[in-house]
Amino acid sequence: MKNKVYVVGMGPGEAGLMCQEADRLLQECDTIIGYTVYVNLLREVYPGKEFLTTPMTQEAKRCEMAFEEAMKGKKVIMVCSGDAGVYGMSGLMLEIGADYPEIEVKVIPGITAALSGGAVLGAPLTHDFAVVSLSDRLTPWEKIEKRLELAAKADFSICIYNPSSKGRPDYLKRACDILLRVLPPDRICGTVENIGREGEAANIYTLQELRDTQVNMFTTVFIGNSMTKEIGGRMVTPRGYRI
Amino acid sequence: MKNKVYVVGMGPGEAGLMCQEADRLLQECDTIIGYTVYVNLLREVYPGKEFLTTPMTQEAKRCEMAFEEAMKGKKVIMVCSGDAGVYGMSGLMLEIGADYPEIEVKVIPGITAALSGGAVLGAPLTHDFAVVSLSDRLTPWEKIEKRLELAAKADFSICIYNPSSKGRPDYLKRACDILLRVLPPDRICGTVENIGREGEAANIYTLQELRDTQVNMFTTVFIGNSMTKEIGGRMVTPRGYRI
Repeated sequence: MKNKVYVVGMGPGEAGLMCQEADRLLQECDTIIGYTVYVNLLREVYPGKEFLTTPMTQEAKRCEMAFEEAMKGKKVIMVCSGDAGVYGMSGLMLEIGADYPEIEVKVIPGITAALSGGAVLGAPLTHDFAVVSLSDRLTPWEKIEKRLELAAKADFSICIYNPSSKGRPDYLKRACDILLRVLPPDRICGTVENIGREGEAANIYTLQELRDTQVNMFTTVFIGNSMTKEIGGRMVTPRGYRI
Repeated sequence: MKNKVYVVGMGPGEAGLMCQEADRLLQECDTIIGYTVYVNLLREVYPGKEFLTTPMTQEAKRCEMAFEEAMKGKKVIMVCSGDAGVYGMSGLMLEIGADYPEIEVKVIPGITAALSGGAVLGAPLTHDFAVVSLSDRLTPWEKIEKRLELAAKADFSICIYNPSSKGRPDYLKRACDILLRVLPPDRICGTVENIGREGEAANIYTLQELRDTQVNMFTTVFIGNSMTKEIGGRMVTPRGYRI
């Protein structure tokens, strides 16, 4: 039987929102590999493991490390925040895995910020939705703009990842300006920061107000669809049962 | 302190993919309410609970039952398959909850089929994506068509829920015909059925082949974006690290 490498989504950071299979594998494994920030969240929860990290921009090297450790016979887990797939490492692991045919890649899903943040806000993604990252490190900004515009025209609820960082503090404003070409300024929107961690905070805005709000790299943003409303401080997109 | 009703996503059905907090709440609660099919999956796992069900089309009644039981002081959980939000009951619970200001609605997210099915196929949703349900029970078909067309034009990976049912066996074919107006016939697609349950099966197709494939109501469908490829039998959408 082939040795396996696991790509595991750890959820938003709060242990309770990790799935049971992910926890079991983390307990059993020899080696945990990941981006420094996420691995540090696991050091105290899973003592006695070998922890390996690489910084951002070293993703390919991180994957190669995982396969090299697995080739030594170790049980290796590549951890991702949220889901293993959504802006996670499962794709690159499968790409690089083509060079390691002796090792099988098994993917364990996790609760991505669209779901965990949505639960904090209420129910913003109850109907069809789109997920868009504003990070242009790996994607041309023109492509991001086009996706935002077409998602708005399609009346999707939209969940925005990576809305801001130190190097690009105005990206959410730029995104809102694109959305405002299509959507009304009073469209209901929401933000959640530090999901499942200390300092968790949710806020509801109009799209116009959101445009002028400074968020940070730990914020997930939700744009409502044409049916979305605020009910008692929660953001709610109806499925349509009551129409 | 207000009594709470919990809306809990149970994941795809396999207990290991339920999050730890959901499991803890299900163990602690008095009453579990849900759609008959999902509640039946829980009866043996959580013995000694009060189980209440309503069939499909009785969603509003199901929510009212949950609040009525909570008003009696019981600890009540409304369960949803997958996530509590994505095509789940959290939205309707918050809408109906406006009539029960004494009760707080708390939402616990779960792993929706886009994530659990994606993990089985490999990594179809590693970049921006859209989620569309083909069920026109609560949504006009014209709106579904428009969303599919614009999602394809935006080069989103697309995850399709409810691609077929007894009453509408040809809906996936109709959806593929819309997508084929925008996307090439050799676009990589995938299907997963019975995710996390007995009979789990994943298949990769071209869009043209998918059009002529009969799926069922337990299938989740994935349409790749322009970068998606097949690697060793897995469906992989690159994030862009290797470009």
